[in-house]
Amino acid sequence: MSEEISAVQIIAESLKEQGVEYVFGIIGIPVIELSMAMQVAGLKYIGMRNEQSACYAAQAIGYLTGKPGACLVVSGPGLLHVTGGMANAQVNCWPLIVIGGSTNQDHEGIGGFQECPQVELSKPYCKYAARPPTAALIPLHVEKAVRYATYGRPGVAYLDFPGNILQSKVEADKIYKIGPHPSPPLAYPDPEDIRSAMKLLQNAKRPLIIVGKGAAYSHSENILRHLIENTNIPFLPTPMGKGVVPDTAPQCVSSARTLALQKADVVLLLGARLNWILHFGRAPRYDEKVKIIQVDLCAEELHNSVLSSVAIQSDIKPFVEHLFDQLNAVNYNFSSHNDWWRELNAKCKKNRDTVMEMAMNISQPLNYYAVFHHMQEVIPKDAIIVSEGANTMDIGRSMLANILPRHRLDAGTFGTMGVGPGFAIASALYCRDYQPGKKVLCVEGDSAFGFSGMEIETMVRYNLPITIVIVNNGGIYGGFDLEVFESMRSEGDLTQVINTANTASCTQKL
Amino acid sequence: MSEEISAVQIIAESLKEQGVEYVFGIIGIPVIELSMAMQVAGLKYIGMRNEQSACYAAQAIGYLTGKPGACLVVSGPGLLHVTGGMANAQVNCWPLIVIGGSTNQDHEGIGGFQECPQVELSKPYCKYAARPPTAALIPLHVEKAVRYATYGRPGVAYLDFPGNILQSKVEADKIYKIGPHPSPPLAYPDPEDIRSAMKLLQNAKRPLIIVGKGAAYSHSENILRHLIENTNIPFLPTPMGKGVVPDTAPQCVSSARTLALQKADVVLLLGARLNWILHFGRAPRYDEKVKIIQVDLCAEELHNSVLSSVAIQSDIKPFVEHLFDQLNAVNYNFSSHNDWWRELNAKCKKNRDTVMEMAMNISQPLNYYAVFHHMQEVIPKDAIIVSEGANTMDIGRSMLANILPRHRLDAGTFGTMGVGPGFAIASALYCRDYQPGKKVLCVEGDSAFGFSGMEIETMVRYNLPITIVIVNNGGIYGGFDLEVFESMRSEGDLTQVINTANTASCTQKL
Amino acid sequence: MSEEISAVQIIAESLKEQGVEYVFGIIGIPVIELSMAMQVAGLKYIGMRNEQSACYAAQAIGYLTGKPGACLVVSGPGLLHVTGGMANAQVNCWPLIVIGGSTNQDHEGIGGFQECPQVELSKPYCKYAARPPTAALIPLHVEKAVRYATYGRPGVAYLDFPGNILQSKVEADKIYKIGPHPSPPLAYPDPEDIRSAMKLLQNAKRPLIIVGKGAAYSHSENILRHLIENTNIPFLPTPMGKGVVPDTAPQCVSSARTLALQKADVVLLLGARLNWILHFGRAPRYDEKVKIIQVDLCAEELHNSVLSSVAIQSDIKPFVEHLFDQLNAVNYNFSSHNDWWRELNAKCKKNRDTVMEMAMNISQPLNYYAVFHHMQEVIPKDAIIVSEGANTMDIGRSMLANILPRHRLDAGTFGTMGVGPGFAIASALYCRDYQPGKKVLCVEGDSAFGFSGMEIETMVRYNLPITIVIVNNGGIYGGFDLEVFESMRSEGDLTQVINTANTASCTQKL
Amino acid sequence: MSEEISAVQIIAESLKEQGVEYVFGIIGIPVIELSMAMQVAGLKYIGMRNEQSACYAAQAIGYLTGKPGACLVVSGPGLLHVTGGMANAQVNCWPLIVIGGSTNQDHEGIGGFQECPQVELSKPYCKYAARPPTAALIPLHVEKAVRYATYGRPGVAYLDFPGNILQSKVEADKIYKIGPHPSPPLAYPDPEDIRSAMKLLQNAKRPLIIVGKGAAYSHSENILRHLIENTNIPFLPTPMGKGVVPDTAPQCVSSARTLALQKADVVLLLGARLNWILHFGRAPRYDEKVKIIQVDLCAEELHNSVLSSVAIQSDIKPFVEHLFDQLNAVNYNFSSHNDWWRELNAKCKKNRDTVMEMAMNISQPLNYYAVFHHMQEVIPKDAIIVSEGANTMDIGRSMLANILPRHRLDAGTFGTMGVGPGFAIASALYCRDYQPGKKVLCVEGDSAFGFSGMEIETMVRYNLPITIVIVNNGGIYGGFDLEVFESMRSEGDLTQVINTANTASCTQKL
Repeated sequence: MSEEISAVQIIAESLKEQGVEYVFGIIGIPVIELSMAMQVAGLKYIGMRNEQSACYAAQAIGYLTGKPGACLVVSGPGLLHVTGGMANAQVNCWPLIVIGGSTNQDHEGIGGFQECPQVELSKPYCKYAARPPTAALIPLHVEKAVRYATYGRPGVAYLDFPGNILQSKVEADKIYKIGPHPSPPLAYPDPEDIRSAMKLLQNAKRPLIIVGKGAAYSHSENILRHLIENTNIPFLPTPMGKGVVPDTAPQCVSSARTLALQKADVVLLLGARLNWILHFGRAPRYDEKVKIIQVDLCAEELHNSVLSSVAIQSDIKPFVEHLFDQLNAVNYNFSSHNDWWRELNAKCKKNRDTVMEMAMNISQPLNYYAVFHHMQEVIPKDAIIVSEGANTMDIGRSMLANILPRHRLDAGTFGTMGVGPGFAIASALYCRDYQPGKKVLCVEGDSAFGFSGMEIETMVRYNLPITIVIVNNGGIYGGFDLEVFESMRSEGDLTQVINTANTASCTQKL
Repeated sequence: MSEEISAVQIIAESLKEQGVEYVFGIIGIPVIELSMAMQVAGLKYIGMRNEQSACYAAQAIGYLTGKPGACLVVSGPGLLHVTGGMANAQVNCWPLIVIGGSTNQDHEGIGGFQECPQVELSKPYCKYAARPPTAALIPLHVEKAVRYATYGRPGVAYLDFPGNILQSKVEADKIYKIGPHPSPPLAYPDPEDIRSAMKLLQNAKRPLIIVGKGAAYSHSENILRHLIENTNIPFLPTPMGKGVVPDTAPQCVSSARTLALQKADVVLLLGARLNWILHFGRAPRYDEKVKIIQVDLCAEELHNSVLSSVAIQSDIKPFVEHLFDQLNAVNYNFSSHNDWWRELNAKCKKNRDTVMEMAMNISQPLNYYAVFHHMQEVIPKDAIIVSEGANTMDIGRSMLANILPRHRLDAGTFGTMGVGPGFAIASALYCRDYQPGKKVLCVEGDSAFGFSGMEIETMVRYNLPITIVIVNNGGIYGGFDLEVFESMRSEGDLTQVINTANTASCTQKL
Repeated sequence: MSEEISAVQIIAESLKEQGVEYVFGIIGIPVIELSMAMQVAGLKYIGMRNEQSACYAAQAIGYLTGKPGACLVVSGPGLLHVTGGMANAQVNCWPLIVIGGSTNQDHEGIGGFQECPQVELSKPYCKYAARPPTAALIPLHVEKAVRYATYGRPGVAYLDFPGNILQSKVEADKIYKIGPHPSPPLAYPDPEDIRSAMKLLQNAKRPLIIVGKGAAYSHSENILRHLIENTNIPFLPTPMGKGVVPDTAPQCVSSARTLALQKADVVLLLGARLNWILHFGRAPRYDEKVKIIQVDLCAEELHNSVLSSVAIQSDIKPFVEHLFDQLNAVNYNFSSHNDWWRELNAKCKKNRDTVMEMAMNISQPLNYYAVFHHMQEVIPKDAIIVSEGANTMDIGRSMLANILPRHRLDAGTFGTMGVGPGFAIASALYCRDYQPGKKVLCVEGDSAFGFSGMEIETMVRYNLPITIVIVNNGGIYGGFDLEVFESMRSEGDLTQVINTANTASCTQKL
Repeated sequence: MSEEISAVQIIAESLKEQGVEYVFGIIGIPVIELSMAMQVAGLKYIGMRNEQSACYAAQAIGYLTGKPGACLVVSGPGLLHVTGGMANAQVNCWPLIVIGGSTNQDHEGIGGFQECPQVELSKPYCKYAARPPTAALIPLHVEKAVRYATYGRPGVAYLDFPGNILQSKVEADKIYKIGPHPSPPLAYPDPEDIRSAMKLLQNAKRPLIIVGKGAAYSHSENILRHLIENTNIPFLPTPMGKGVVPDTAPQCVSSARTLALQKADVVLLLGARLNWILHFGRAPRYDEKVKIIQVDLCAEELHNSVLSSVAIQSDIKPFVEHLFDQLNAVNYNFSSHNDWWRELNAKCKKNRDTVMEMAMNISQPLNYYAVFHHMQEVIPKDAIIVSEGANTMDIGRSMLANILPRHRLDAGTFGTMGVGPGFAIASALYCRDYQPGKKVLCVEGDSAFGFSGMEIETMVRYNLPITIVIVNNGGIYGGFDLEVFESMRSEGDLTQVINTANTASCTQKL
């Protein structure tokens, strides 16, 4: 009989073997020993204050490193506090592993402590969710969980461990053995599709490249910068696509975003989805006749919302490499003297002037542009910027520049409030371990800050170099002043009255 | 054509008509106008800082008033932040209505803002979940939601409103009309079962009554106090059954809880479940031969975990009334000179002495008993006590007395961390509106406080009379000190080493 | 070490102990041995031809005996073939236990044979669904499954057994012990509600009693027959409420159903739901001002669709007993000389005359009334009648009388096609074992028969006394004749053309 | 105002536009008009006898044509009767669209006809499930449903249509316009991976190619036949991979399957999964040190169950094309004089001799080999063979040769019983329309035939050229003979007795 190994050690070592590096969580029965074993195995454990934030932190580290972070939670409410986090990671296509303790199996059906069907409840938010049936089979499910979280379109995996499994042991030679799987495979583009894309681009009068979060995640920054520099095609980043090519590049037309979208005749869409953020790719926000070249590693995403003229299933990086080679081969360059560039540049200048005028107006209460303009002047240019809120996030996004990829994390595709502090903590750890000396800036609306503000204690406890800026725009809504309301209610459409009352109330607070 | 009424007004007025009084939430697109309409309709709106806490507050008000509170959330993450809250209410059997905005229906399938299948995602936590298909049908679904939340075993209902429904209007005479349903029906006991229960009690040598949260919810305090006073049967309250009969009553044997459970020969279980809190009703925590008289309004709950000798489907109040009449008719009284009482009283005295000794030891760091003993001396005896944490909650429960029903709210059946501030806010509003002058005490472990600590801002914003006590026992787990760990790791079982390391770490922090 | 008992034996004996008597199924890996063990334990096993029918049979035996039948299925498709059956039982509120084998747990995640998440997939159709974690805990989950299936509103329970559990053994003294629970508790009515009901009935000018399937299931036929005889109140049965009071009773107004519903001023609803079968209880099918006295054991069902004037949570039998006593006490009798009776009787006569005229017309193709009238003349009056189809079922229901309770089984509340042969097989077994000599009549439309017609082989194999009548009304729809269609398509509204084409096609086939 | 178009017409025309060609179903309320509109739009409608079979037929046509067939069902039980079919298609990775009618939305919540949450209930079996919110948006969801069913790994989509939507109309110019999407994109292999695969193959001493259903679905037969002919590498087909390369090719080593799997040192896996059918790719069925080159279009499938040495995300066809070119470039050929070929050929011969001996034994009851050998001699060699059962299917698979791709359909990855007649009907329609004159052979075990045997009526009604062979091996299990059992029960292990009893019973029947 070989040595007995505890289940918690097997979990910990399997995660480590599969490349997991960080664990964010809150512990309690039945995962206390597991958190210990994880640390012994060399995983970095960070104790948070609410599972919500733990999960946001774990997914941010996944995005930053390309390897899923783990989120460790207790049974019942511990797990349910991360459904929002799992959904956010899944919608953002970020790798994440959630590890949950659950009630002892012999207490199932009789009111066990925090008993609930955790695998089933996690499923809607996961690519893979399972309860390893025995300690011996843990490595199989950990490998599969990490693989599903990272292969194909990245996302979420959940593993469930009842107390009795966590407390069990198994002889070493009975443990299922599986080594680490390699990095995710790269899907390559159909050469025919590249030719079609080339043809469209070459004939375009008003081309535009949209750089999405997928381009950032695929680390395609080097080749993409070359491509944009060489071709001189105007580009727009999506919120988290910012920095793949620097916001400061001459080809960046963020300042003329509305115009660029509306008038482009060919759009090359790199790792971005035509969802609400991109106005569904439809008129009147786009030209009725715009031709879209869509590149996405997820086949099912192709043509979603509108039919693309060329739809390419491919990882962004190999696609851009192929495109770069072929555009180079024909010496393609979109001249700055072109009408399209003239129109875009004029619009950019006009918009920048307007913004600068507002930015220089420092009458109180300060307007957003004044706030962000002066903030931008003092922050380190290579800082990771985390942001959430409504106006605070939206206007901040346009005012605070990113020159490096994966250096902006915000409410994202799912528009989630409460992500800021967790994202900032993950970013600070990432900097500490991978890019020492780099700073993290966390820009929050005052309402947004309320969701996870307690994590300041976590930042302090781990001594993390995070600067939080709260823009107090009176965003906390507490109901309107009934007296004000009644005085306005004499007549008219209820909705109008309400809107006015609301504005009044907000103004007052401001 | 009759006047057009907006959907938001219909929702608001339907909720009001069905008896909903309070709304806790965080607003944003698409429910901003709905929050206004609710206030116009006379609902009390309280703006919170995280949906988690909003949901905990809404369910606490439901428990306190017997009418469901509403929790108003935005789409996507807004709803997902309350899955824990919905589960907690459902497990606690407390009435709750969650109202969620959702993405416009014409954006479904193309990446709408915070698009997710909200009705489906809520189902596992709900007795009723629906999306009213048109504005005209809203009253039908609101009535049904409130009915399901309150009739039978109380629980959770979810109603989903896409943006386009919220913005719609309908002619007044096309709106579905349904008045308010009456209060929940009372299930009456089978007379045969009462006779069986009587016989068991009359023959019991060591009877015990367990008073559960169900007895509190059913407002059976008056008749139950009479019954216990008249019969002199010893009783134990469950955590939230405390105060139905005062903790200070001479028949209360909380100080000898372990003994009382272990040696009782007949247990009368009133609105409590034989789950983990009551050790599943099984040996060795109970006598192998104990006979259980189980009274529960939920038929399916009967015999769960162990077969009851008499299992009665009934509301607690009518059952106790019938039992009281029949015990009175035979002049049943369980004398204090009985062996069972002598044994219990001796044990109570012994345990109280031990506790008092610890309570008097005020060496630092203060032990829990010292903390709570002195706290008990100064707090108003009629305060509502909210509590969460591990040791803080457990020991506090035994040390802080309740003399009134529904005056203790804690982590409850689901053992949820983060409920404290939300429960306290609800309690304070309840006091403000129903029992003016009464105070709320919120006793939190330092780790527990981290979950929802930001709601202090809410308490301040609404000027609520809540006193928070945080017991700093070093409960925040941030990973162990690796150096300490390494020095201990030389040999031995990993789990042992870990446990020692952990204890060391905790002690250090304390 | 005590004797080892196999898991399959534990399952079989637990089911037997909890009162399960019949098992319908189709076996294969991994439940072959289980089917054997069941027979050894004394359960009656019936091998069917499609799991669909096995499930319909099992639920019918549950309705007939009050104890759930078991449906035994293999993994994957075996289980999925009974989702319709589980839903039908759940919607009909009939007790049913489904037992499914599932893939070995060590094959989960790697493409095990017929691997799928069976507990989770069953949940939407179940009151209880679980996988016992070990052989030792099987009795706990079997007891709970049977309890949930029969207590409160009856319904469905699912138990899942992976191959490795089925093949496991456990020492006898480690097996969880729990005896059989007693029969379901009876919910008694609130006395106040009985008084309110009395008052409404006494003041009613046009009272009507509706007898539902719930009255049949609760075995309230004796007291209810007395009540209707004594009070002379007109009554209508629902489809499966037929026979609780004989269709031939003078108070039965089925022949004037439309009038009775439309003009009644007080409706006493006994174990029936105001769903599509009862036209939702709404105008114009009911009087706008009708007052409803609703009696249902499910609290949440009260007031559904319309607000009842008196809504009583009670089992039907104790309610009728109380009502009977009180009506007797005041000598209540609704005279046949009353206008309401005169109107109803006139309408009944008129409708019966019309029907008789059609019934006497035996020109070919035979009309439905002719078919059923002559059928009724020759069938044993105490036969169990099973029926499904569209017109065949609807018209057959009004023409074929039931004089005994629970002697009609049809497509039911869920309107399920394919139930007939399974229901007939269960009925025949019930007769064989409980009412020897009684016959079963199965009246099928020709399309309906196609769903489960292969079960004729089962009937033959077990030599069951079932007579099947197929009414060939050309109900099999195979698409229309395109030539006919094209010739009609020259003009007009598409829907009209289609309808005409369809009718033509059907007529042709007829 | 433009012309109004009915919803049913929009559905029908959208399906047609997206390439759907066949509809299998059973109609009733509320989809009668839809079935008409489908025929008017040029879809071929086939009326079946049980929705189960309709769904099996629809998915088979999807596999055969590469375009999803539609399955049209009524609400409630109509849909639930196809959960098995949806699961089977999803597990087989075959494209399928299910179209379900559902109850009117204004009847939701009040007991509407066959009311149930159909979208939610379909989700576990679907890649996409939705209810188009309005008639105008139907084309969006139909396009998406077809796209999800066919793009990436093919699978199932469900669309839900309440009665009120089906009956609605919308002005033509308000209908959402979207054209047909192109054929699914092809994922191309990473060139680096091809090189790694090459290297492994070139160094292999005992190479083996496994040809899966995915190779068949991708139509890679031409290039794959060239590759196998040129390289002379031995190959094994999976059950539905049979015929991609003819079973009669000299490189086919099906007769030495066990040996080939056990001793191969390099396995090239083309569109097959290492699931139960391939013994999970593990020892002792494979060499401990076997190196696997896995090619699959689904990234997440890579490394499942065992780590592949080279794991390639690619469509099978482009991969084989690249591999062919590169193997050709180096003139790779695996000589028949090699030891591996000698060993395989010897084993093949030996096994064929054994089989032939059995095949020639025609003593009664006929053994399987005798049955199939003589059947093989007389059937057309290009027939489509459909099969299900246990031994009947397994032995028939090895005895009945396929020389053309996609010419075998059987119980498949999910091992589903009842698929035969539906698959045969689809195959016959496919032949009628695409390969006139070709025959369909349906080989069924006697138990298997019982699941869907009624569909013979459908075959007759549409005059389809299907030959059904039923192998009567006494497979219908009806419980054992208790007398036989009791006589054997005197002693011994229960399972043993049961097994013997069972065998006896089966033998008797045989």
